[in-house]
Amino acid sequence: MAIEVPRAVRWHDGAVRIIDQTLLPGEYGEIDLVQVEDVVEAIRSLRVRGAPAIGIAAALGLVASLRPDLRLPPAEFRARLLEYAQRIRETRPTAANLAWALSRLLAIAEAKASASNEELWDALYREATAIHEEDREMCRRIGEHGLKLLHDGATVLTHCNTGALATGGIGTALAPIYLAAERGWHVRVLATETRPLLQGSRLTAWELQRAGLDVTVLTDSAAAAAMDRLGVDLVMVGADRVVANGDVANKIGTYGLAIAARHHGIPFLVAAPSSSFDFSLASGEEISIEERGADELRAGFGCQTAPDDVPVYSAAFDVTPAHLVDAIITEKGIFKPHEISRLRR
Amino acid sequence: MAIEVPRAVRWHDGAVRIIDQTLLPGEYGEIDLVQVEDVVEAIRSLRVRGAPAIGIAAALGLVASLRPDLRLPPAEFRARLLEYAQRIRETRPTAANLAWALSRLLAIAEAKASASNEELWDALYREATAIHEEDREMCRRIGEHGLKLLHDGATVLTHCNTGALATGGIGTALAPIYLAAERGWHVRVLATETRPLLQGSRLTAWELQRAGLDVTVLTDSAAAAAMDRLGVDLVMVGADRVVANGDVANKIGTYGLAIAARHHGIPFLVAAPSSSFDFSLASGEEISIEERGADELRAGFGCQTAPDDVPVYSAAFDVTPAHLVDAIITEKGIFKPHEISRLRR
Repeated sequence: MAIEVPRAVRWHDGAVRIIDQTLLPGEYGEIDLVQVEDVVEAIRSLRVRGAPAIGIAAALGLVASLRPDLRLPPAEFRARLLEYAQRIRETRPTAANLAWALSRLLAIAEAKASASNEELWDALYREATAIHEEDREMCRRIGEHGLKLLHDGATVLTHCNTGALATGGIGTALAPIYLAAERGWHVRVLATETRPLLQGSRLTAWELQRAGLDVTVLTDSAAAAAMDRLGVDLVMVGADRVVANGDVANKIGTYGLAIAARHHGIPFLVAAPSSSFDFSLASGEEISIEERGADELRAGFGCQTAPDDVPVYSAAFDVTPAHLVDAIITEKGIFKPHEISRLRR
Repeated sequence: MAIEVPRAVRWHDGAVRIIDQTLLPGEYGEIDLVQVEDVVEAIRSLRVRGAPAIGIAAALGLVASLRPDLRLPPAEFRARLLEYAQRIRETRPTAANLAWALSRLLAIAEAKASASNEELWDALYREATAIHEEDREMCRRIGEHGLKLLHDGATVLTHCNTGALATGGIGTALAPIYLAAERGWHVRVLATETRPLLQGSRLTAWELQRAGLDVTVLTDSAAAAAMDRLGVDLVMVGADRVVANGDVANKIGTYGLAIAARHHGIPFLVAAPSSSFDFSLASGEEISIEERGADELRAGFGCQTAPDDVPVYSAAFDVTPAHLVDAIITEKGIFKPHEISRLRR
C-alpha cells in the first residue's frame, strides 16, 4: 500500500512554501516565506518545526530571502548572507540541524569567494535543495533500519511529532511505522499529546490518520499507565540534538518516557539523522536548553489555563542520558549510544 | 502568618453552595445545588471535584435534594433517599469518599427505621455536616503529620489539586504546605498542570498564589526534568482510593511521577484521609478506573486540539503500586503502604 504524506516544506516559485502547522488539525493552510523576517517568524512561531524541517526551511529560506539582494555589490551581498544566516540561526538554540544547514551554506560561500552574486546564489540554491533531497533520503533509510525493530501487530508509543511534518520526507521516528504500513503490517501508534504545543495530538495524530494508520492519542501523563496496561512494545522518539556521549536532547517529556520505559522493560529508541549529532559537546550537561514563553502554559489556546502572572518552568527540551537509550536509529544504521562516535568524521 | 483558603463546598440556606471550579482561574463564581440533578451535574462536570470535597458535596447534596420530598409518605421519602443516593454514587466510580459518605447517610436511615421524615432529615443533615466537620479536622491532622516531613526551604512537587478546593478544609497533600507557611517557612511548590483538565495550573496555582505561597507551574511532562534540574526534595500527591495492599489510585500521571521520583531517589508521599481507604479491594488491579469523555483531549478548551474522530486513551486515574510509595500520610499518622491494614476497623 502506498503511503501519502504531507509536504511540510518545499521550494515553490522563488519562495519557501510551508504548511502552517499552527493551524492544524482544525485547518489546513500553506504560506510562502519570502523575506528573512518571514523565515524567522515562521520558525520562531513553530509554523514550521521539527529539527530536520527547520534545517531545510532555514536553508531554503536563506536562499529565498537573498534574491532581492542580488543587485547589491558583492561585498554587501555576502554581508547580507552572513546577517540573514545569523538571524535565522538565533531562532531555536537547541535544534542541531538549524546550525548545521546554515553552516553548509556558509561553507559554500567561503569556497566560492570570488564567485559573482548570481553564481553564488545558484550554488546556495543547489546546496539548499541538496539538503532537502538528502533529508528525504535519510528519512527513508532511517525507516528501513528502524523497520528491523518492528513487527506486524506492534504497539509503538511516540512523543511529539517526528513524521512528515517534521522533516523533508517520511519522518524520523515515524519513518519505520510508515514503511511498516507500506508492507501491509498493522502497527498501533500511541501518540502522547505533547504539551504545551500539542504536536502529538495536533500533528502526529493528523498525519497518521490522514495516511490511514491506527493512532490513539493520550495525555503525556498517561504514558506510564499505557505502558503498564496497553501492551507497549517499544517507545520511539526523535531528537533535536545527540551529543558525543550519546545523551539526547529532545522535546520536554522525553526523559520521563525513557525512565518509564526502562521501569517497564520496554526498549527506548531514538531515531535521528546524523545531522542531529553534535560531537562538539561531550555530554548532555553542555546542551543549551531553550525556554519558551510563559504564555504557552498560561494561555496557550486562547483561554486562560493558569493564573495570569504565575511563574512557569517552560523548558522546551530535556536531556535523556545515554544509559536510558537502548539504541539510536540513524540513516547509517542502528547504534548503541556509546557507539555513535564512530559516525564522527 | 494566618493562611486564608477558599471554601470549595458548604451548606448555605438549604442548598449546597460550591465554587464552580470549571470557571477558575479566569473567573470566580459560586453556585447553589438544590435538586439531585444539580448535584449530579456538578460532580460529573467537575464543578466540585477532589475526593473529599465530592464526598461532602454528595452528602450535603443528598440532604438538600430531599427537602422538597419531606411531605411524601415515609416509604416514598425513603425510596427517594435510596434513589438519589444511587444517582449521586454513579457519577464518579473511582473516588472512594463518594460511596463512603453516602453509605454513612444510608446507615443513619437504617438505624432510624421508624423515624418521621423530619426526624430522619434532621439526622441526615447532622451526619452530612459532621462529615464536613470531620474532613476539615482530618485535613489539619494530615497537615500536622505531613509537616514532619517538610523543612524550611523545601521544594515539593505535586500533581492535580489536593488543596482547599479538593476538600472541606486545607487539603490533603497541600495541607502540610499550608501549615509550613503558617509557621513562616518558605516552601516552593512545583505544580504540574495535570492534563486534561488542568487542575494543577488552574486550581492549585490559583489557591496557593491567593494564599501568598511560592508556586511554579510546569507541564506534566516536565516533571522528570524538574526532578533532575530543580532540586525537588519530595513529591506529595493525594489519592482517590487506597486499597488493602497499599496500592494507590490517583489522577492520571501519578504513576509516572512515582516512577520518576524513585529513579531520582526522591521520596514519593501520598496524603489521604482514611475515608479514601478501601479494604474491600485486595490490590490495585481490582480498582475500577473511570474513563472520561474523549473530547476532554480532543477539544478540551474550546479549540480543536486533536483530529475530530481520533481515538483517545482517556483513563482519569492510574494505579501506583505500593512498592513505589514511600509513605502514606493520614489523619492518624504516617504509615508505610504495607502498614495501612492497621487502620482497618
